[in-house]
Amino acid sequence: MADFVCGLDAAVAVVGGKWKPLILWALAEEPRRTGELRRELPDVSEKMLTQHLRELERDGVVHREVHREVPPKVVYSLTPAGAALELALRPLGDWGDDNMEAISAARAPLRPAES
Amino acid sequence: MADFVCGLDAAVAVVGGKWKPLILWALAEEPRRTGELRRELPDVSEKMLTQHLRELERDGVVHREVHREVPPKVVYSLTPAGAALELALRPLGDWGDDNMEAISAARAPLRPAES
Repeated sequence: MADFVCGLDAAVAVVGGKWKPLILWALAEEPRRTGELRRELPDVSEKMLTQHLRELERDGVVHREVHREVPPKVVYSLTPAGAALELALRPLGDWGDDNMEAISAARAPLRPAES
Repeated sequence: MADFVCGLDAAVAVVGGKWKPLILWALAEEPRRTGELRRELPDVSEKMLTQHLRELERDGVVHREVHREVPPKVVYSLTPAGAALELALRPLGDWGDDNMEAISAARAPLRPAES
């Protein structure tokens, strides 16, 4: 699982979850509480969001800080590695924006050719 | 399947196969025949290589050209979108090179703490 064939393989393993880039982008703006992330990513189930955050934390790109209040306040932020990752993702995101439509079209089910 | 939540999601879908970045890198150097790719990526099974190439072709980043010879010569190259993708991947690959060791360590099975 942790045997990567190259740096890019490792990077894709870290951001490969469907919503992980969006989480990184939100946290790059500013640290967020769990509830704030949930409101910003309404399409992500609570379970999925929690799992993604745990994996991002394990991979060293997200920092989770618990403030001892009642109720406890949990704040997520990017680590320095996470901030560098978010920057490194931008050119790839731009490429995806430019090519998304063509990729979607190529992956759509084949329709019978018009005659 | 072809519903992407953002450009980066689309880009990751295109390069997410374990060996796809390595194929793009090889083709960025120069166009390659099937046998050349096979020799350069000895750890990839022939079946997996063929499947990756087909998907990269479908996604519009690899061009497959058949020269009518006996036996037929098949040459793979990057399309303009593929060349742009390979460039966009570089910062992410660099990030992965810098962080691969930490990620591997974080993902290794937990060992009992030494006492």
